[in-house]
Amino acid sequence: MNMNFNLFTSTNLLFGTGMLNELGKQKLPGKKALLLISNGKSTRENGTLNKVQKQLEEAGVEYTLCANIHENPTKEVVMEAASTAKKNSCDFIVALGGGAVLDSSIAVAAMATNPGDLWDYVAGGTGKAKPLISKPLPIVTIATTSGTGSEINCWGVISNNEANEKIGFGGVPELNPVLSIVDPTLMLTVPAKYTAYQGFDALFHNTEVMISKDINILSETIALSAIENIAKYLPIAVKNGNDIEARERVAYASTMAGITMQLTSTTAKHSMEHAMSAYHSNLPHGAGLIMISNEFYKFFIDKHACDEQFIKMAKVMGIKDADKPEDFLTALYNLQKECNVENLKMSNYGFTIDEADTLATNARETMGGLFLANPCEMTHEDCAEIFRKSYR
Amino acid sequence: MNMNFNLFTSTNLLFGTGMLNELGKQKLPGKKALLLISNGKSTRENGTLNKVQKQLEEAGVEYTLCANIHENPTKEVVMEAASTAKKNSCDFIVALGGGAVLDSSIAVAAMATNPGDLWDYVAGGTGKAKPLISKPLPIVTIATTSGTGSEINCWGVISNNEANEKIGFGGVPELNPVLSIVDPTLMLTVPAKYTAYQGFDALFHNTEVMISKDINILSETIALSAIENIAKYLPIAVKNGNDIEARERVAYASTMAGITMQLTSTTAKHSMEHAMSAYHSNLPHGAGLIMISNEFYKFFIDKHACDEQFIKMAKVMGIKDADKPEDFLTALYNLQKECNVENLKMSNYGFTIDEADTLATNARETMGGLFLANPCEMTHEDCAEIFRKSYR
Ligand SMILES: [Zn+2]
Ligand SMILES: [Zn+2]
Repeated sequence: MNMNFNLFTSTNLLFGTGMLNELGKQKLPGKKALLLISNGKSTRENGTLNKVQKQLEEAGVEYTLCANIHENPTKEVVMEAASTAKKNSCDFIVALGGGAVLDSSIAVAAMATNPGDLWDYVAGGTGKAKPLISKPLPIVTIATTSGTGSEINCWGVISNNEANEKIGFGGVPELNPVLSIVDPTLMLTVPAKYTAYQGFDALFHNTEVMISKDINILSETIALSAIENIAKYLPIAVKNGNDIEARERVAYASTMAGITMQLTSTTAKHSMEHAMSAYHSNLPHGAGLIMISNEFYKFFIDKHACDEQFIKMAKVMGIKDADKPEDFLTALYNLQKECNVENLKMSNYGFTIDEADTLATNARETMGGLFLANPCEMTHEDCAEIFRKSYR
Repeated sequence: MNMNFNLFTSTNLLFGTGMLNELGKQKLPGKKALLLISNGKSTRENGTLNKVQKQLEEAGVEYTLCANIHENPTKEVVMEAASTAKKNSCDFIVALGGGAVLDSSIAVAAMATNPGDLWDYVAGGTGKAKPLISKPLPIVTIATTSGTGSEINCWGVISNNEANEKIGFGGVPELNPVLSIVDPTLMLTVPAKYTAYQGFDALFHNTEVMISKDINILSETIALSAIENIAKYLPIAVKNGNDIEARERVAYASTMAGITMQLTSTTAKHSMEHAMSAYHSNLPHGAGLIMISNEFYKFFIDKHACDEQFIKMAKVMGIKDADKPEDFLTALYNLQKECNVENLKMSNYGFTIDEADTLATNARETMGGLFLANPCEMTHEDCAEIFRKSYR
């Protein structure tokens, strides 16, 4: 067990049912917020936007609403939101939404105070990897889904469609949100399908951490607790979205991944899914991860890269007497079936099997760093083969 | 299970063997440090002070050495160190030492920038409970023992001998250390006896959190991991102080208590020990806790206040088939025997049995808040009776 780690999760996290009602009592990090939401209807229709606006008024801050964030957010929407923040003299950001909004807020915070284009600062692909010059705007996050973990960490994934790149941006402590509210009551209205996709994203953040070369005693402790809770409660949340305990447990697991991913990075599966979404922007991140997950883990299991880690995960996923790494594949497939996602098909999102090579190249070029976290070597051909074997 | 919690551990924690060598590369929160150490010889003799001074020079900061902190530190030494910080225009604090130094640094940071006396700001006993007016100095901690947890949280326990009070001060996020280095190699020279006392302090921070009314899903996850590691590795560290793995595991458990105690408070046992040390300042904190521990937990076990919590702890402490709360008492006593602390006697520190009532009164008057965290009511008479039954 690796005993060394660096913990720098600096977000003041208010977690739990009813916590949104505490927002108005908090000392907020500015006087005028850019209130960032998605271009969809859900936060308006389910009343969440209204509640947040009331809380901001109670806290005595002004806000400018910016409702332009779509799924797989692009650098264009980030730059547009940053420009809105500048024009309206916003001095902090309130990000209200799911993964797309929370991820975007990290990049918007940076671009609201730094010159040039987001891709000047992105490390990977055609990004120029410059360091930020000015301090980003402080971020407050309010999560409405359980999946990303970005609510309490300093990473956001943004797409550059021109370059077919989808890359994680951030990674500096100044981009950690200063305050985060994770209130599971805001998640009760997420449809079953998305509950499943997002829940599997949260699962994979933790399972990838578990097999990562950089796993350590603290990230393992928290990740196993998260995995156990998802395995037990995600099927319940999928079947009955109004089950508040299930929503709480899944939200816990998702938010904890924000910590485990900062302690220990995820692995190449995330690079591989980003490549898939970069070429097929209609593919939800969680769905893409599910499609390649069985073959991805099987690759490392066949190589006996980290048998013990797979056995530990299988145990907390309900196979109490697990004694071989393959038990993890059984547990994973069972969970997919319980959540009705075992039959997702790449072909339904317009993929052809010939893309495998292109996807493998893109994954390594844009987010090659995550390949170094894999528990053993995965060549370009190995990677392409995982896409091919996963293809349906 | 309580699913609501507030996580606000904002310290950048560099944990692990060799991490002290990273200090010089960090961006420190000021230009001139008050380098706070104990009035003892150990950090000078074992070379740690020297190493820290070299790292501070590498980081390009000046420092003023202040070597006045003794065991069970008093408000007088805190005020003296704060005055040294002011006189020398120190703009941050580097606390190098064990619990006494780390606890003191929290109070020194506040008093270096705020007017009046520390007891103006202490809540409890004769303290005036005023809020701090000015922002405290930023704190960097470097732990040389495993016990307190103060290296990454915003609480420090200080004594007022005049008033026979020993009270936890702090609790506001501005007092969280900004940077903490926990390097187990600095702990290799701690004598066996103190390794045991401090290790039990770390254990009890976590076991008290486990039985606290405010236990929640995250504090329980981390606390159980900490308890498991102490039960397994503290006896090894006591027997062979040079066993680096044992030192790492115990340090992990101790530092994690800094998080669990901020998520969930400890219980009346800590108030009770503070009363003991307030009247007998030669009593090490960990030794005092050990002396009353068996009777303290037995009180709640006899009342069936939280049977499941005791069973969970007994299991991770090595009684795999634990099925009744009393198994925890067995595990606790076994651990005391393995660490040679099962025969500690109050009478050896000058206590008489007649003090029980005074101690129980003091515990409630100075830190009565912790009684509210107990899993069931404990009256004044119950508390005095625990002291009496523990007396040897
Ligand atoms: Zn993800
Ligand atoms: Zn203690």
